[in-house]
Amino acid sequence: MSATLAADEALARRRCAGEQVLSLASGEIGLPVLPALRDRLAAAADRNSYGSVSGSPALRSAVAGYWERRNLPVDPALVVCGPGSKPLLFALLLAIGGDVVVPVPSWVSYAAQARLAGARPIPVPTLPGEGGVPDPAALGEAVALARAAGRNPRCVVVTLPDNPTGTVAAPGTVERLARAARDLDLVIVSDEIYCDLVFDPADRAVSPAAFAPERTVVTTGLTKNLALGGWRFGVARLPDGPLGREVHTRLVGIASQIWSSTAAPVQAAAAHAFGEPPEVVAYVAAARRLHEAVVRTVAERFTAVGAELSPVRATCYLYPDFEPLREHLAGAHAVHGGEALATLLAERYGVGVLPGTAFGEPEHSLRIRVATSRLYGETDAERFEALAAADPTRLPWIKASSDRITEVLTDLAGPGRPTP
Amino acid sequence: MSATLAADEALARRRCAGEQVLSLASGEIGLPVLPALRDRLAAAADRNSYGSVSGSPALRSAVAGYWERRNLPVDPALVVCGPGSKPLLFALLLAIGGDVVVPVPSWVSYAAQARLAGARPIPVPTLPGEGGVPDPAALGEAVALARAAGRNPRCVVVTLPDNPTGTVAAPGTVERLARAARDLDLVIVSDEIYCDLVFDPADRAVSPAAFAPERTVVTTGLTKNLALGGWRFGVARLPDGPLGREVHTRLVGIASQIWSSTAAPVQAAAAHAFGEPPEVVAYVAAARRLHEAVVRTVAERFTAVGAELSPVRATCYLYPDFEPLREHLAGAHAVHGGEALATLLAERYGVGVLPGTAFGEPEHSLRIRVATSRLYGETDAERFEALAAADPTRLPWIKASSDRITEVLTDLAGPGRPTP
Repeated sequence: MSATLAADEALARRRCAGEQVLSLASGEIGLPVLPALRDRLAAAADRNSYGSVSGSPALRSAVAGYWERRNLPVDPALVVCGPGSKPLLFALLLAIGGDVVVPVPSWVSYAAQARLAGARPIPVPTLPGEGGVPDPAALGEAVALARAAGRNPRCVVVTLPDNPTGTVAAPGTVERLARAARDLDLVIVSDEIYCDLVFDPADRAVSPAAFAPERTVVTTGLTKNLALGGWRFGVARLPDGPLGREVHTRLVGIASQIWSSTAAPVQAAAAHAFGEPPEVVAYVAAARRLHEAVVRTVAERFTAVGAELSPVRATCYLYPDFEPLREHLAGAHAVHGGEALATLLAERYGVGVLPGTAFGEPEHSLRIRVATSRLYGETDAERFEALAAADPTRLPWIKASSDRITEVLTDLAGPGRPTP
Repeated sequence: MSATLAADEALARRRCAGEQVLSLASGEIGLPVLPALRDRLAAAADRNSYGSVSGSPALRSAVAGYWERRNLPVDPALVVCGPGSKPLLFALLLAIGGDVVVPVPSWVSYAAQARLAGARPIPVPTLPGEGGVPDPAALGEAVALARAAGRNPRCVVVTLPDNPTGTVAAPGTVERLARAARDLDLVIVSDEIYCDLVFDPADRAVSPAAFAPERTVVTTGLTKNLALGGWRFGVARLPDGPLGREVHTRLVGIASQIWSSTAAPVQAAAAHAFGEPPEVVAYVAAARRLHEAVVRTVAERFTAVGAELSPVRATCYLYPDFEPLREHLAGAHAVHGGEALATLLAERYGVGVLPGTAFGEPEHSLRIRVATSRLYGETDAERFEALAAADPTRLPWIKASSDRITEVLTDLAGPGRPTP
């Protein structure tokens, strides 16, 4: 079971039982549907044809325009949509075949999907402050070792910007990763679902497709920038050239056998979204500002009690490391690793987070992933107000949550620690 | 690539190029969305939460009611929904593991999905006029042979009523299959997506879950009875007891890693549909009458030129065998097998059908699958008229298609054959 979804369901049960809970586990974006997109979906409710496996021509053309505006032009014939980027990633692993290099830490599902696809994940650490991209210098050795052991690494997954760390690998690192992948003949699967959620325009994530266009598959969706996880929609951009066309043919074949096509009404609304009319651009910009304000406020609460933290530059995640508090956590709480820390936070304080082990970290690591995207309000009215607020951290419901985080962390860290 | 979807896309290209085509390949139901369901989907367009992996409580409870009314009561906790019954079937094969017994002939995707899941299909023939259920007497030997060869058969797939033959296995055959599966310790995956499309109430398909409740998983969806293929919605009913709960846990885990959850607006409309309010019951009844009238008319055209055909008792499919015309087809058209026959029909006459090889038949077989569900009209107005008509076969657009079928078959069969 996906760790994110499991934690989410467990917390929902506690909430239903009347407990006070703070949901920082799931990265689901707690924002309302943009009315223009809601109306597009409603207007397309009479569409009941399967249509093309890869998506309607209108949808694929809108998606190609979206990528072209990000300096990644693509023939719409090489765009494939699916019921989420998750099934597309799984089908890509099947289509490419062989074993899969995954960064450590990385999103909970890459390694699990590799195993379901009959492959084995090959973990490679990331560079400090540059999550999502395996250290290019370590990639060669890991792949050589795997090949010497008779395994068959065929692709490397990267996340740009990164979940769980909220960081963005530098363009130079991405370029070196792309070059290493070319030298090693690996396909690059670049999960760029957070690409519109980088806070500073100067920080913009650069895709490996800019450096190794012949071997980079890019995926994205509507789940993160437009808060439409429950609509289930994702897209993949296949590379041009013989390798890309071969992977495309296999991907479409696999998609036809696993999910046939993507819900037609959702495709209609997605075509509108990927066309990026002004109301969509404005919504994404407002959401990005909101994520930045809240995730940075919450990050400060963690650094205030002494947790280590790379500056968050994108997404709605932070990935604090409680290593500096190891001795205190062991003595005061008998906590020696991330899972025990997450359990303590859930059971004593009703605070849901994910342990680093869910992202491939060793059990003794005291890293946890904190998602702040559920703090924007309980009702659509509160959430719209949060989107529009000049300083959302001063809204009473958001302030109550961040104050509660301070309270919990101060109690956790003990009296010897500074209070913010 | 799924043979159905590939044939469908090829025919769509010919149609776009201005050719006169008759689409008898895809089993997509060419009927409009029931307005009450369209309105439910539209009203739920603001739902953007992932929700539970297995589906919302309201949806699962409605589905449990649907099955209870068919003498298959189930705890809603053992209902799992997905974006189509196709992904559920794939995830079930992964969850159960091992090799998969499939009937011959059977739906194009079972064997392909087994291969994608890393398993191997074990083909077992069906009894004459009772498609969809492997001959119970042959099952034991096939499984014993596979086990002796070191393979690990763990489940058997059945289709009730059947695609491609439009027949319904007799309750006695289903009971013997269920007993054999129990003796062999196989899980039964029973695809019952056509269960509401049996023409004569006395013929009603009996599920193997009636005979081996502890080991039968049942799947269905909205694609066939309510013509909602393009909405992508399916459900699975897991057996009660330790085996069922184990498969359920694995299935939900796999679903969480491959597709997360099912589009929330679609779930809302599906909950209404599975509640079976009067307008839904009336729509399904009207569609069933329409399928019966048209598929029987078309079947007569095939028997008129001498093709062999089991009486069609459900669905919108017929599966004629041109074996009696083998000599003529070889002499007049150099056609020696089903693929050449399907190609001839497509290229000379613009008639799309699927060859028996797509359903696991040997290449020399002269069987083809003919789907009549695309003949109901080109516009929603025509399609609603077809649903309401006392005798839809007299509607000009349906009559034109069946006349064209007669014309094509008469030309194919040559002057020596009787004309209807």
